[in-house]
Amino acid sequence: MNQTELKKLVGQKSVDWIKDGMIVGLGTGSTVKFMVDELGRKVKEEGLNVVGVTTSNVTAKQATELGIPLKSVDEVDHIDLTIDGADEISADFQGIKGGGAALLFEKIVATNSKKNLWIVDESKMVETLGAFPLPVEVIPYGSQRIFDRFEEKGLNPSFRKKADGGLLLTDSDNYIIDLHLGRIEDPHALADYLIKQVGVVEHGLFLDRVNTVIVGKQTGPEVLEAR
Amino acid sequence: MNQTELKKLVGQKSVDWIKDGMIVGLGTGSTVKFMVDELGRKVKEEGLNVVGVTTSNVTAKQATELGIPLKSVDEVDHIDLTIDGADEISADFQGIKGGGAALLFEKIVATNSKKNLWIVDESKMVETLGAFPLPVEVIPYGSQRIFDRFEEKGLNPSFRKKADGGLLLTDSDNYIIDLHLGRIEDPHALADYLIKQVGVVEHGLFLDRVNTVIVGKQTGPEVLEAR
Repeated sequence: MNQTELKKLVGQKSVDWIKDGMIVGLGTGSTVKFMVDELGRKVKEEGLNVVGVTTSNVTAKQATELGIPLKSVDEVDHIDLTIDGADEISADFQGIKGGGAALLFEKIVATNSKKNLWIVDESKMVETLGAFPLPVEVIPYGSQRIFDRFEEKGLNPSFRKKADGGLLLTDSDNYIIDLHLGRIEDPHALADYLIKQVGVVEHGLFLDRVNTVIVGKQTGPEVLEAR
Repeated sequence: MNQTELKKLVGQKSVDWIKDGMIVGLGTGSTVKFMVDELGRKVKEEGLNVVGVTTSNVTAKQATELGIPLKSVDEVDHIDLTIDGADEISADFQGIKGGGAALLFEKIVATNSKKNLWIVDESKMVETLGAFPLPVEVIPYGSQRIFDRFEEKGLNPSFRKKADGGLLLTDSDNYIIDLHLGRIEDPHALADYLIKQVGVVEHGLFLDRVNTVIVGKQTGPEVLEAR
C-alpha cells in the first residue's frame, strides 16, 4: 500500500470509535479527510447521530457538504472524542501538529475533549520529535522581533509562505513561524519557553494530550494506547 | 488638582526622558494622551528628532495628526524607551494594564524596549494588585469554554462589552475577559496559569518589566525607580 492508502485505511478505521449520540471533534488534514468522508457515509447511510465540532474552515466545508451536523466549540458543553492527524508522534506519545496551519483551533478543540485519538500513517512515528518543523502561530505585530529572538536562540526559524510567496495567514489572521530543530530534546521545556514569548499565540507541540493512536502499517491498522 | 490635571502633569513631565534621536514606544490611555501631545509639541516647536512606535490604532492616529514620525515595531531593530500608563501598580512595581483593551500591542512593544517608564496618577498606586479587573485577551473560538474554566476556578470572569452591548473586539479581533479578583496574592503564579490556557493570547499582568514610575501627586510628580 502506498501512503495515501495507509491514510485512508486508518481514517476509515477510526470511525469505529465514534458511537451514536457523541459530540466529536473533527481534525484537519489529509488523513482526517478520509475519516470525515467515512463519518459522512455512516451519518447518511446508517443514520448515525453525531454532532461535529470542526477545527478549520476546510474541514467545516467538507463536513457540511457531507451533511454532518456541526456546532462551534462554544455551543457544546463537552466533546466526547476528537479525531485528528499529527505530523510527528514520538515513542512517548508526544506530538507535533500544525503542518496544515490549523494548530490553534485543533489545540482548542483537543483541550476541550474528554478523549483524543490521533490517526497517522507509519511515516509519522518517530523516536524523538523535531525532524518535522515545529509551527508557532504568532501575532503579526512584532513577529519580526520574535523571529529575530528565535534566530538568536538558534531555533532556525522561517516564516511560512503561500504558493504566491506572500506570508501565510491562519484562520485567526496570524502568521506561522516554523522552527527547523532537527531534534527536540526536551519538548516540555521548549513548550514552556515558546508559550511565554509575548506575541506567540500557540505552538504545535501537543504534549500529554493523546490517549490513543491508530497507525497505518502495511500489515494493517495498529492501535496504540498511551500509558 | 483633580485627576485629569494630575494625569496631564505626569504626562508632560515624562517627555523629559525622551532624548534626541530616540526610538520611543508610545503607550495608550488618558495619561499617555497628554504625553503624546507634549511630545508632538516638542517635535514641532523644538525640532526634537524621534521615531514613535505605537501600541494602538488610537495612539497612532493622535501621533500622526501631531506630525510625530512613526514606525511599526517590526521596522525598528530596538526601542530605547517606552512610556505607557498602567491601571494599577503595586508596591513592588508589578502592574495591571489593559483597561483600554490595548494590552497585547502594549506588551509586545514593552517587551522590545530597553527601558519602560510608566506614568500614573496617585490613585493607581496600590499595596497589592487585584482591585482593578485583570484583562485577558482570548481567541473568540473557544472563548466560552475558557470563560467556564475561569468561572469554575473562582476567577469571577466577565466578557468585556461595547457600549451597544456587543462583545468588544481588540485591535487583533480577539475578545477580552476581565477577571474580578479583588486581591492577587501571587501574580507570577497567576500569569503562569493564564498564559498556558489554550486560547489565551495575552493577559494584563506586566511583571518585572518597568524600570521607572512617575506618579502624579498633589505635591507634584514623584519619580520612583525600581530596585
